[in-house]
Amino acid sequence: MEAISREVKEESSIIKELDPLFNPTSVAVIGATDNREKWGYWTFCSIVESFKGRKYAVNISGKDVLGYKSYRRITEIPGKVDLAVFVIPAQNVLPVMEDCVEKGVKAAILITAGFQETGEEGRKLQNEVVKIARKGGIRIVGPNCMGLWSASSNLKAFMLPLPVLDGPLGFVTQGGNVGVSILRMAYDRNIGFHKYVSCGATADLQIEDYIEYFGYDPKIKVVLAYIEGLNDGRRFMEKVRKIAKRKPIIVLKSGRTEAAAKAIKSHVGALAGSDKVYDSAFKEVGVIRVDTVEELLDVGVGFLTQPLPRGRNVAILTGGGSYGVICADACEINGLNVVKLPDWVVEELNKILPPRWSHGNPVDPAGDRNLHYYLQIPDILLRLGEVDSLIFMGFGGFYRFAFFMNVKIDGVELPENYEEFSRFIEEYSINLLLQWKRKYGKPVVTTTFHESESKLKNGVYHYSSPERAVKVLAKLVEYKEFLEKESSKKL
Amino acid sequence: MEAISREVKEESSIIKELDPLFNPTSVAVIGATDNREKWGYWTFCSIVESFKGRKYAVNISGKDVLGYKSYRRITEIPGKVDLAVFVIPAQNVLPVMEDCVEKGVKAAILITAGFQETGEEGRKLQNEVVKIARKGGIRIVGPNCMGLWSASSNLKAFMLPLPVLDGPLGFVTQGGNVGVSILRMAYDRNIGFHKYVSCGATADLQIEDYIEYFGYDPKIKVVLAYIEGLNDGRRFMEKVRKIAKRKPIIVLKSGRTEAAAKAIKSHVGALAGSDKVYDSAFKEVGVIRVDTVEELLDVGVGFLTQPLPRGRNVAILTGGGSYGVICADACEINGLNVVKLPDWVVEELNKILPPRWSHGNPVDPAGDRNLHYYLQIPDILLRLGEVDSLIFMGFGGFYRFAFFMNVKIDGVELPENYEEFSRFIEEYSINLLLQWKRKYGKPVVTTTFHESESKLKNGVYHYSSPERAVKVLAKLVEYKEFLEKESSKKL
Repeated sequence: MEAISREVKEESSIIKELDPLFNPTSVAVIGATDNREKWGYWTFCSIVESFKGRKYAVNISGKDVLGYKSYRRITEIPGKVDLAVFVIPAQNVLPVMEDCVEKGVKAAILITAGFQETGEEGRKLQNEVVKIARKGGIRIVGPNCMGLWSASSNLKAFMLPLPVLDGPLGFVTQGGNVGVSILRMAYDRNIGFHKYVSCGATADLQIEDYIEYFGYDPKIKVVLAYIEGLNDGRRFMEKVRKIAKRKPIIVLKSGRTEAAAKAIKSHVGALAGSDKVYDSAFKEVGVIRVDTVEELLDVGVGFLTQPLPRGRNVAILTGGGSYGVICADACEINGLNVVKLPDWVVEELNKILPPRWSHGNPVDPAGDRNLHYYLQIPDILLRLGEVDSLIFMGFGGFYRFAFFMNVKIDGVELPENYEEFSRFIEEYSINLLLQWKRKYGKPVVTTTFHESESKLKNGVYHYSSPERAVKVLAKLVEYKEFLEKESSKKL
Repeated sequence: MEAISREVKEESSIIKELDPLFNPTSVAVIGATDNREKWGYWTFCSIVESFKGRKYAVNISGKDVLGYKSYRRITEIPGKVDLAVFVIPAQNVLPVMEDCVEKGVKAAILITAGFQETGEEGRKLQNEVVKIARKGGIRIVGPNCMGLWSASSNLKAFMLPLPVLDGPLGFVTQGGNVGVSILRMAYDRNIGFHKYVSCGATADLQIEDYIEYFGYDPKIKVVLAYIEGLNDGRRFMEKVRKIAKRKPIIVLKSGRTEAAAKAIKSHVGALAGSDKVYDSAFKEVGVIRVDTVEELLDVGVGFLTQPLPRGRNVAILTGGGSYGVICADACEINGLNVVKLPDWVVEELNKILPPRWSHGNPVDPAGDRNLHYYLQIPDILLRLGEVDSLIFMGFGGFYRFAFFMNVKIDGVELPENYEEFSRFIEEYSINLLLQWKRKYGKPVVTTTFHESESKLKNGVYHYSSPERAVKVLAKLVEYKEFLEKESSKKL
């Protein structure tokens, strides 16, 4: 009981502190300008085009911006201001932050760079800014960041025009660049974020604060993070541990090597820390670590679209032998078990597949042309207690092949036109996928046979290679095992 | 002298044996049919649509195919036949092969499956077929393969409709499926093959035979191979060792694990062998080993478009700090050295970059908006004796950013329309890339900041992530070091 009431208290406290950032009623852009060559122009554009609440331009010149009246100082604004976005040079931030305190601003985003990453003087200035903000209870994002997105208030406070969709991911990134790439890739794949923040140098708000806030947001199902360095590892572990039990937290942590650690110092001014320490700390608190930007998104989508597998046993269905081999390699390398099929299942498959089929797992019908039987196989495999997950390969290219080969599905009339045929087969197989998912509650991870951008649609997403699909599945298993370990602790 | 004359003899011998396959004057398709549901239809289509030499349909029914007269037996064809393509059931192959011997056919492609991969009986039948073919001096591709492509005679002898471009790659694949994926990916990226063969179960011609043949083909600059198992490792090493000194051979070898080895047995009927043995054998003979299908193509393009670096020292230029960090990590993990810049270079860069730049390698201008200076940096870095290669990140997204920020290039008038602007900047930067390449003779590997399909154009190809670019660069270094070791042996 005490633990629960403590958690409720913590939840209400972090929500109270971060809500003015993600759900402000009014926003002021300090440094808003009509000059297209300045970040202040694009930041103000971004907010004006998205946010429905009150917007104010603050500019020392006092000239109107995009038709909005401009104020020389934030203190001149008549209404109250929840959030101030700074897009002015570093040396001017201090007095304006004092104004913000006077004005009663609750949160600030410092897009401005030129603080701790430039050396000792920059760090001193940064500390001064934070000190003043704290005096007034202002929480700070950044400095040296690219801004944030909040679907709950349709606020796109970015320093440049970026595409973003609403969706069930939360993302905190210490790299603006990596963040932009993720946004771009996610947008192209129809994957959305409910909240997104480029956290920059984390002078005040820390990565774990955002993760905690996202953790209590019921609209966020999976939390992603790109981390270069943490200011307080112990605090991170404490906060993140609680959230990891509620929802998956997937982290890309760079700075594994000496060369990268140096680069981090000049980038965000943080210390990368020992990679091994990070690795074991992440494991302990249940953070899922990935190796690349692409994998961060892959695994994120995996958690959104798949149930957790009960264990490490995998069945593989492949439209071609060599990809079956490659997938089996990837499974074993990633700690998954390519399960041996019971004899009676081999017998059952013998009845519907040509004699040249692989007679085992991976199940390779070896060029069989009857789609009807091919699409029956998942049902046979998923039914087995021995099988925890299915990897089903060959979406995309598979339909093309099926079309050319005049493939049939018993009892179904197929369109003769290629476009219509592809669309029909795609819908048909997606419906099957959704049926299997409901019926068996096991992951069915699908892949294409060539690199392409798949789109998330109806909860289905195809990965572009067996290796990528297997890595996702391995992370689902890892998280499942963490949850089991945690729940066994309680007993 | 003796070694050279032996090599000339070997060269003329392999060319003589494989030329009827890749440069036949006439081709017969055994099993050609009008029935779209059969492979014989698609195989005959593929040849009729591409090959300009004489084409014959052989079908036991004697019915015309696609307007071509059909012969019941190959022996009934009036003219001579160089190449016979088999698309008939396994049990019918033996007598037809006898006919081929009688007819004086020189080479055969056995698309037909159902031999050694099905077990002992299949293997016996296969041995019989090979025995008869050898009697008549017929060389065999396959069985259980998807066919081949030869740009030199515009022969596309595939069992299904596949897109392929002419170009400087040679490819032998033991997986039809993987081969099709590579063709698809290569086609989408404007990458071509001079010769391509799906080698199947390698009952007669071995993977090393194709590699040797490709090795002596002056139009093939880089050889790619996908291998599941070799029949004679020693023979492979002997043959491949000679070719590796002439041109790069890049190999994806699957079957690293127990699970995959089992899958290989049912797929091509080969033994995967110990992965460690393969690994050290490949190293010894100078074969460049890669880990994924995507990497096979990535590295192939790398060897086509980049000179070999002199050493492991790399300079990194990045449009964003976090990708600089990720790239530095990837370099060190892959054995490349993120070289320390001399003080005087840092001073020189201080003159053109804003104070917040990274002051080291990776060189990160930290949001500087002057493209003129940004594009001067490679020239400064490549000039250095300490720098063997440059990784230049940010193509693609970079232009978008440059447009929105009204970026300038001193002395150049930039288009105001986004499409034209992008096109202009792309051409402008590609011209610079080509200039640097000529001027310094060092690799300049470029990347975008998000997954996308780049197209090979004017010898320039952008990779979709720093990790992928770094892996390519590491393989270029590996090959360079192999060549150096070999040439030091001769001294």
